[in-house]
Amino acid sequence: MDKRQITLKSIAKALNLSPSTVSRAMKDHPAISAKTKALVREYAEKYKYKPNTLAIRLRTNRNNTIGVIVPEVVHFFFSTVLAGIQEETEKGNYNIIFCHSNEDYEREVKSVETLLDARVCGILASQSKTTASFEHFQEIVDSNIALVFFDRICTGINTDKVVVDDYAGAFKAVDYLVQTGCRQIAFLGMNPSLPISNNRRMGYEDALRKNKIPVDKDFMKVCDVAEMVHKVVPEILKRDKIPDAFFCINDEVAAYCVQIVKASGYRIPEDISICGFTNSYITEVTDPTLTTVDQHGFEMGKQAARLLINRIEGTETKPGIVSKVIKTELVVRDSTR
Amino acid sequence: MDKRQITLKSIAKALNLSPSTVSRAMKDHPAISAKTKALVREYAEKYKYKPNTLAIRLRTNRNNTIGVIVPEVVHFFFSTVLAGIQEETEKGNYNIIFCHSNEDYEREVKSVETLLDARVCGILASQSKTTASFEHFQEIVDSNIALVFFDRICTGINTDKVVVDDYAGAFKAVDYLVQTGCRQIAFLGMNPSLPISNNRRMGYEDALRKNKIPVDKDFMKVCDVAEMVHKVVPEILKRDKIPDAFFCINDEVAAYCVQIVKASGYRIPEDISICGFTNSYITEVTDPTLTTVDQHGFEMGKQAARLLINRIEGTETKPGIVSKVIKTELVVRDSTR
Repeated sequence: MDKRQITLKSIAKALNLSPSTVSRAMKDHPAISAKTKALVREYAEKYKYKPNTLAIRLRTNRNNTIGVIVPEVVHFFFSTVLAGIQEETEKGNYNIIFCHSNEDYEREVKSVETLLDARVCGILASQSKTTASFEHFQEIVDSNIALVFFDRICTGINTDKVVVDDYAGAFKAVDYLVQTGCRQIAFLGMNPSLPISNNRRMGYEDALRKNKIPVDKDFMKVCDVAEMVHKVVPEILKRDKIPDAFFCINDEVAAYCVQIVKASGYRIPEDISICGFTNSYITEVTDPTLTTVDQHGFEMGKQAARLLINRIEGTETKPGIVSKVIKTELVVRDSTR
Repeated sequence: MDKRQITLKSIAKALNLSPSTVSRAMKDHPAISAKTKALVREYAEKYKYKPNTLAIRLRTNRNNTIGVIVPEVVHFFFSTVLAGIQEETEKGNYNIIFCHSNEDYEREVKSVETLLDARVCGILASQSKTTASFEHFQEIVDSNIALVFFDRICTGINTDKVVVDDYAGAFKAVDYLVQTGCRQIAFLGMNPSLPISNNRRMGYEDALRKNKIPVDKDFMKVCDVAEMVHKVVPEILKRDKIPDAFFCINDEVAAYCVQIVKASGYRIPEDISICGFTNSYITEVTDPTLTTVDQHGFEMGKQAARLLINRIEGTETKPGIVSKVIKTELVVRDSTR
């Protein structure tokens, strides 16, 4: 049998099933028995069945454009993710269009509508900070459009995801601060509604615990944008007990923190160490340059796009959710002892 | 007569013309006499004629989505332009999708195709550095899709544009450097294929001439990304005659320049002044903070989007090209004397 000729129909004929049973078995439909599913998959794998993507596109009236929803564009990390997405989608001959939610729930909902309206064949999304309701993402899944979350995942939706090991990244960074002599490590964190915030906070707390340093809630602040740094850091520096290190949720916060700490007369890193998160290019232009956690955004973008394309083209047939984790890396520069 | 009822047909009836003549007169069609055009416009203005945008959308099979093509997303300036575009399009109840050319001609061509395929009703575009052929932009115009260029305009295409007064911005900055005592001002510029590069270079040259300082080609380098700064600036600093100021094409170049100049043992601004262009947030986190030219990207984005929407809705009826210029502003910080 010519392998290129394998279709749902020929599988159905060979196994003595109806084409719709085969189709539903391939899609892990609950109405099909586990035995039939196994039979169909085994046969499809053996004969290297590939769904006819052009037919799918025609049937679903979708084009070969992938839509991407990002919460922030000025953000270096998301820019590098976009670059990775772009490289991978080009390799796969897909076009991409972006929507920008600007950390706003309403805009995120509108972005989903816009992308569905533009007839995209798949969506890559990273959730905004203010999103607490997920129907719009469910609508994508219900429309049979492939959906992959990256970085800021939505735990309420049953779909593929690519995340950074935020926990391990934070743990490594804080452990390094302790190993280099810091004992009073402040954490400038983010709204706990996003899993990434919690994971980094837990990494921070566990690194302290591992080193037998008590977790002090007074040293943990929500402080993730420039305006907050200008308010929060001077307050912390006015206390009787001041930190000997700041672990910051992103590089922008760390860069402003460097400035305020220096302006208050402290030496970096001799008096106070400062560590960021992302490894954006501003870590190279601050004085001193910034120690940070590299999130490998480019790699994340590539992997998320590859996973989505595999779903669109049917080459990723795992019925459950695929979760990929990108490893972080501590990049030591001059802002830490 | 109820003003809300004004249609092409009622104008035609009132002026004893055919509806297609009225329609073509509104669109400044060459086959219609100047007298008839004036007659139609006068009447349309008097009775506040508004084209039926829904009908236009149905007829042209377009939705209410505006497409935006940007050359760079990591770029602070373009991010602020996008924010301005977003604010204005939301006010007008339009959705937006972005395409990213990544300074690459092929991707720019593909972006145009993708946006046309997504049935956008208008396009805002800023050209990539490598674009030297313009058929893809002409295709937008030929498809009767409204097109407005912003910042990096394409002089070969006859369409509306919003630009920054790069010439005046550069002139002011360099004149300020001279007024504060600098005489040997190096220019770290950009590929001259884009009008913005030439305009800034001319502003630089004319400010020197106005102050009777000879223009020295040895002090003018193409140097617009980090890697080039690391190569070009050390070379300049090794010469017998070194500059007492650097005027840089963007803030990123200026930030790396600050670092290299300091590492070479010079004081900023006492020995060497440094000035950037854009007013991005990195100007606040370098040490010293950076003097720069604010391009008002947000305002540019708003004006470009407004102009496009007015074209889409037919409220901007000027037959020729509308060119808007956004004023720049010198922001003096600590990197200049």
